[in-house]
Amino acid sequence: MKITKTSTRVSLGNKVRKLRKDIGMSQERLGFESQLHRTYIGSIERGEQNISIDNIHKIAKALKVSPKDLLD
Amino acid sequence: MKITKTSTRVSLGNKVRKLRKDIGMSQERLGFESQLHRTYIGSIERGEQNISIDNIHKIAKALKVSPKDLLD
Repeated sequence: MKITKTSTRVSLGNKVRKLRKDIGMSQERLGFESQLHRTYIGSIERGEQNISIDNIHKIAKALKVSPKDLLD
Repeated sequence: MKITKTSTRVSLGNKVRKLRKDIGMSQERLGFESQLHRTYIGSIERGEQNISIDNIHKIAKALKVSPKDLLD
């Protein structure tokens, strides 16, 4: 199945990766903190997931940022 | 079924309603422009939907704002 990546998905993925690396957090740790699977985090960062707002909420919380900060 | 509304859902819903009303757009029109159902728009505005990023993208586009503008 071809994955259609909207610009919003891609920019969110890049933002999550950047913020995570900025604080030296591993994908594994972010997964643990946000109660999402490590491989799902990787997939989000690559813009492959049509992530829901509740999961955006969880990731923002785990990164200690506002959900707004995850979008461009 | 009890709907759990995260603060992020509720603030997105309020933001969508505000921006839509600011430009005098009906839920029906927003539904048409974003290719989502009118009743789904109403439900998003009430914070009832775990909306996905692709639909956030569509709504932002229809409202001519950045996806970031839909979050607090």
